[in-house]
Amino acid sequence: MQKKAIILFSGGLDSTTCLAIAKAQDFQCYTLSFNYGQKHSVEVEHAKRLADFYGVAEHKILSLPIGDLAGSSLTDKKLAVADYNGSSDIPSTYVPARNTIFLSFALAWAEVLDAADIIIGANHVDYSGYPDCRPDYLQAFEQVAKLATKRGREGVIFTIHAPLLNMNKAEIIQQGLQLGVDYSKTISCYRADDKGRACGSCDSCVFRKKGFKEANTEDPTVYA
Amino acid sequence: MQKKAIILFSGGLDSTTCLAIAKAQDFQCYTLSFNYGQKHSVEVEHAKRLADFYGVAEHKILSLPIGDLAGSSLTDKKLAVADYNGSSDIPSTYVPARNTIFLSFALAWAEVLDAADIIIGANHVDYSGYPDCRPDYLQAFEQVAKLATKRGREGVIFTIHAPLLNMNKAEIIQQGLQLGVDYSKTISCYRADDKGRACGSCDSCVFRKKGFKEANTEDPTVYA
Repeated sequence: MQKKAIILFSGGLDSTTCLAIAKAQDFQCYTLSFNYGQKHSVEVEHAKRLADFYGVAEHKILSLPIGDLAGSSLTDKKLAVADYNGSSDIPSTYVPARNTIFLSFALAWAEVLDAADIIIGANHVDYSGYPDCRPDYLQAFEQVAKLATKRGREGVIFTIHAPLLNMNKAEIIQQGLQLGVDYSKTISCYRADDKGRACGSCDSCVFRKKGFKEANTEDPTVYA
Repeated sequence: MQKKAIILFSGGLDSTTCLAIAKAQDFQCYTLSFNYGQKHSVEVEHAKRLADFYGVAEHKILSLPIGDLAGSSLTDKKLAVADYNGSSDIPSTYVPARNTIFLSFALAWAEVLDAADIIIGANHVDYSGYPDCRPDYLQAFEQVAKLATKRGREGVIFTIHAPLLNMNKAEIIQQGLQLGVDYSKTISCYRADDKGRACGSCDSCVFRKKGFKEANTEDPTVYA
């Protein structure tokens, strides 16, 4: 019998690669997307289309009131998303506790579905320095998953898979291309317009652009 | 300067006692309630009135799509909340990953407010055996809080306070009465009607009723 996996799925380059990897590993895939007040909520439409394309077992879109807590330029209309500036500081697009919130819902769904595998596109090479994309964090969440749940207490081992964790963006793209991912259908930009066109200059665009260049492959992104 | 604390606040006996303790400890109190599809959502009205009464710095009510994931008789209209049956099994009212979801939002809000203290009314004496009310779970979440956040990475120690953890219900009530809590304003029943009247026979009612009896004090609960 196929094992079920919950995939945190934004419709971006990383999470779409994760979905392709999960399919190749013969997981039965349950994709989970969030409307959380992100300015680039057009990503959820991309996620829906990609989930359909990949024929996932179920795609769920949940609305979360993260924007009500404020604190991030990704959700707060009063704060602008900055251009990439090469700094190693955690940028204004950091959303407090976002991955913990996302993983908590994935864990709840996993428990309901009798799944023990959760897949997240976290990456700590070509990334913005977000604390909740690092290996020690993901390990700590696994421990929470074990102790928080009825099934964990009964001995089920929940695994947080982060298959992209140690890859750079070019390696992620190469892996995805080998698996047939059509990156023109994915979206990464923090300032994407409502037609899904990318700005080309936010952190996310800069890492993505650099990835295609270093992978020596054409960048299929549509820029505004 | 007063330290800020986020208090997970349902308007129930336990969390109201936590709020009274936090006030007595001179925390500046930020209360957080959730509409999560619980059948007894009348508790949120009680929480609002109690937060007003205690003059908290801010009371936030967030709506969460936990019910969309199903799996609990507390949120699923097709499943009945059972009467207390004395079993040591985790009951049908268990909501998968609920405290992890709640604590994740508390953590996000704490980070936005520059708070480092989160208070939860978890208790593992007179309780239903929920896995996410146990000390090892709360410790694991503290580790997640440290590693998930920008401020945690900068050295801030987030503390999950569970002041009721090792008290029985009678001790909780005695502590609250010493602090002047008016328990007639609190609500604990999983099957409370829309006027806030308790059923008297669900797990939550049974533990509460037993608590007042063992505390040798009048039970001010209004039963249907």
